[in-house]
Amino acid sequence: MLADVIRIIPLGGVGEIGKNCIVVEYGDDLLVVDAGLKFPDAEMFGIDLVIPDVTYLRERRDQVRAILITHGHEDHIGALPYILPHLDVPIYAPRLAHGFITAKLREHRLLEQSDLHVVEPDQVYTLGSFLVQPFRVTHSIPDAVGYAIHTPVGTVVHTGDFKFDPTPVYGPPPDIRLIRAIGDRGVLALLSDCTRIEHPGFTPSEQLVGTTFDEIIRDLTGRVIITSFASNISRIQQALDVAGRYGRKVALVGRSMAQNTTVATELGILRPPDSTIVRLEEMRRLPPNQIMLLTTGSQGEPAAALSRIANGDHRQIRITPGDTVIFSAAPIPGNEESVARTIDNLLRLGADVVYEALATVHVSGHGSRDDLKLMLDLLRPRYCIPIHGEYRHLVLYRKMAIEAGLRPEHIALLEIGDVVAVDADAIQRVERVVSGQVLVDGFSVGGTLDVVLRDRQHLSRDGVMIVVVTMDRSTGELLAGPDIVTRGLSLTPGNNGDLIESARLRVREAVVNHATEIDHAFLSHKIKDSVGDYVYRQTRNHPLILPVVTEV
Amino acid sequence: MLADVIRIIPLGGVGEIGKNCIVVEYGDDLLVVDAGLKFPDAEMFGIDLVIPDVTYLRERRDQVRAILITHGHEDHIGALPYILPHLDVPIYAPRLAHGFITAKLREHRLLEQSDLHVVEPDQVYTLGSFLVQPFRVTHSIPDAVGYAIHTPVGTVVHTGDFKFDPTPVYGPPPDIRLIRAIGDRGVLALLSDCTRIEHPGFTPSEQLVGTTFDEIIRDLTGRVIITSFASNISRIQQALDVAGRYGRKVALVGRSMAQNTTVATELGILRPPDSTIVRLEEMRRLPPNQIMLLTTGSQGEPAAALSRIANGDHRQIRITPGDTVIFSAAPIPGNEESVARTIDNLLRLGADVVYEALATVHVSGHGSRDDLKLMLDLLRPRYCIPIHGEYRHLVLYRKMAIEAGLRPEHIALLEIGDVVAVDADAIQRVERVVSGQVLVDGFSVGGTLDVVLRDRQHLSRDGVMIVVVTMDRSTGELLAGPDIVTRGLSLTPGNNGDLIESARLRVREAVVNHATEIDHAFLSHKIKDSVGDYVYRQTRNHPLILPVVTEV
Repeated sequence: MLADVIRIIPLGGVGEIGKNCIVVEYGDDLLVVDAGLKFPDAEMFGIDLVIPDVTYLRERRDQVRAILITHGHEDHIGALPYILPHLDVPIYAPRLAHGFITAKLREHRLLEQSDLHVVEPDQVYTLGSFLVQPFRVTHSIPDAVGYAIHTPVGTVVHTGDFKFDPTPVYGPPPDIRLIRAIGDRGVLALLSDCTRIEHPGFTPSEQLVGTTFDEIIRDLTGRVIITSFASNISRIQQALDVAGRYGRKVALVGRSMAQNTTVATELGILRPPDSTIVRLEEMRRLPPNQIMLLTTGSQGEPAAALSRIANGDHRQIRITPGDTVIFSAAPIPGNEESVARTIDNLLRLGADVVYEALATVHVSGHGSRDDLKLMLDLLRPRYCIPIHGEYRHLVLYRKMAIEAGLRPEHIALLEIGDVVAVDADAIQRVERVVSGQVLVDGFSVGGTLDVVLRDRQHLSRDGVMIVVVTMDRSTGELLAGPDIVTRGLSLTPGNNGDLIESARLRVREAVVNHATEIDHAFLSHKIKDSVGDYVYRQTRNHPLILPVVTEV
Repeated sequence: MLADVIRIIPLGGVGEIGKNCIVVEYGDDLLVVDAGLKFPDAEMFGIDLVIPDVTYLRERRDQVRAILITHGHEDHIGALPYILPHLDVPIYAPRLAHGFITAKLREHRLLEQSDLHVVEPDQVYTLGSFLVQPFRVTHSIPDAVGYAIHTPVGTVVHTGDFKFDPTPVYGPPPDIRLIRAIGDRGVLALLSDCTRIEHPGFTPSEQLVGTTFDEIIRDLTGRVIITSFASNISRIQQALDVAGRYGRKVALVGRSMAQNTTVATELGILRPPDSTIVRLEEMRRLPPNQIMLLTTGSQGEPAAALSRIANGDHRQIRITPGDTVIFSAAPIPGNEESVARTIDNLLRLGADVVYEALATVHVSGHGSRDDLKLMLDLLRPRYCIPIHGEYRHLVLYRKMAIEAGLRPEHIALLEIGDVVAVDADAIQRVERVVSGQVLVDGFSVGGTLDVVLRDRQHLSRDGVMIVVVTMDRSTGELLAGPDIVTRGLSLTPGNNGDLIESARLRVREAVVNHATEIDHAFLSHKIKDSVGDYVYRQTRNHPLILPVVTEV
């Protein structure tokens, strides 16, 4: 490998939303930006979460100088507990993310052996041959940064997730002066958030939501329930402020809501008005107009507090007419139906429900087209790599960058595992490395989970048919069975018995008198052959057929 | 039952989108408006479609005077092939719907015994003690009507799905004069579409899409591929018109696209410009700027033409750079991810893709708030029942109706199976009837499909573990096994063999020496007990455990 090129390798986060993980490589030094997870999509039955395949890093563990974290969202930090046992590498994160990571690693009993550092914007960190300069941006979580990574070949800038919020709820606005200064020094390659490129203009300030909260809650006489992401500390701050303003006490409902607010309060990032937060039990003695609940469940997750409240099976909270529920979040793609169901159930119980279509109770943390354009203008990079977007977002970002004056061949649309080499002359795709997704289910990480998932997908569509035959070891005769058990197989009403009986006869014919020697593979094959097509013709189902051949 | 009340019973279409089916009852006469299906939601594994439970109608088959169809969408006509065999009842439908129903019943070999009639707006039909007056509305399919159903107690109006399109592509605009005249005569109860109540203003005219098509296609030099619902004949008309204008030939790709356009052309509702439509094979000899393809697959359905094109496995069509694909449809809730995936795959192949976020290539067929308000103002009903909406839409419609001057107690929000009695004095919920959903999978309709589906859901999450033991019939001894087979169960890498081996030992302990008499239920129970918790502790999976006890 030539030492005078930088190699950039996305192990996640391009052509998809989630499991952000980008490698920046110079000579023998590797830096990783973010190590996030993705929540499983609808077809990933029973899978808990999805993390990037970091084989590439494991094979170079001695060369990985650090993992830089841009902010504390799960899609940027969630893979750490699964990756760290394989990589002995320091982590650098801004304060709130540092707090969330600490809690997370403690839970996974990994904190002791971890090497965690807080990064402060405005400081410069030397990591291997890199000079790393974090800069302040704004996002839907406080304490978000981008990174300028200076190398002898040039500077790579990673924006993290960002919008230009001129009036953030916590902390100063994005450090436009510093970003411009980095641009003035010359940027070789920009890795930019692009997920909201479809939206024109600038994304509104987070403060707009606080104004809406105030307008809605000011005159309410009933209870108020607000649901949002538990990591959206600024949103929670604004809810608390409005509660304080109108004499409401606030209880935090749901584990992550309680845990994140504790971390953020200890760090001084969340500042609840004095004696506003109370325990849920204390709400009993308060009149409705002094009550606000902040709950998890903004995505309609079945196990979350709000979903249980909406289903009428939360132990402590019952909806009554007069309650107002505010959905202060947009559904993540794939969650639209479960959110809609939760809203409907709350309405059925008599609550008033306010959601994004009805009032500005949510704004995005990602920059719209003009935010993205502004970042590009401030940094004026030679090359550009849009990240953190579905493929269509990458394509639209490229169009925007070309309109902004970049040359088409200077914009690289990457897929996960692509390696681009960057130097003063060109940006070019040079190879592909092992990469992809690793599934996590319970205690299982990767391994045969791909096969397990394929089986689950098959089972979910067509069910299973088990065919058991018992053979005489010495004669090869059929001693018992065939016994047939099905689950999840749609049998036409009326022919249930017939179908199973006919299938038994077919199996019997297939297995009797074939050989004295019992060849399990051969018999299994014969059994599948004898019933597969028949069952399909009768039911239009293709069940997973599992022959079990027992010898006595 | 008193003869001087009207009973209204939704068997579908309230609190949900789809399987529209509303019963209007007076004395011994029943009318049904629409008999639609719903496509299965994401958790209905392997289910093909969902239809309303019409037990109520089957039990009164001699009293059902007719099924009135408002328009030819599947969610209004799709249940007919499953319902008609149980109900010997005439169907009344506007011309295009009549054409679609005819094709559908022919396919199900039900046409011969069916009693199908065309309804013409402006005419009045006597059905039992009802006078039925269809009136012209506009929707995303030509030939849509609402119905005024006159009874001795008063008039019930069912709007069907509608918007007020002043410039529809086919036929005249909604018959506002007739609708107002019906209102002037007095309307007792209005059943109104409400699905788009969240959107302010009026829904734009269908013609707007034609203008966008023209702007996009005018200067294109490559091929154009447009995907839309195959029932959206006006959309197809506009695509054909633009093709004709710019010298492009059009091929229809996908079975329903070909079938629906044939029906609509035969009826004179679709009027392709002369010699515009050609066979797909003929496209080979044409340059790209003379090619337009109209395809199914606007919802990203895996088997549809466009999805196969996007995956690069369509036999005749390959995407090349220069192609432009227009998604002229909005994703139905639940289909967002598959649509996004299709768009991304097309972009990866080098196509330009235009979709709703980027240009007005789609408008809804449903009226927005002001359309709904206008209908209410024209009809000035005494009572109101919002239909064709999720529960939140019903609630928002009620708010709008109250603002428009209706009394809150005159607006009924119904659930499926609710019966309301309506007369001059009151609208009140009086009882509930058997109702709900019937699942269809292959040849199976209803029956045990609920159980089958629950098993599939279980299998999809945690897989299956089959435990086979072979016992000696005379002694009760364990002769062979336990054999354990799993599928879809996530085994922690490394402990796969161990887990199965330990499970076998546990089962063995549980079944040996228990009795000489073999009690299958008891043994099955013992087997499940012996491994269920153990497997969960080891894997965090709760597989479906299927014991098979064989006797020799």
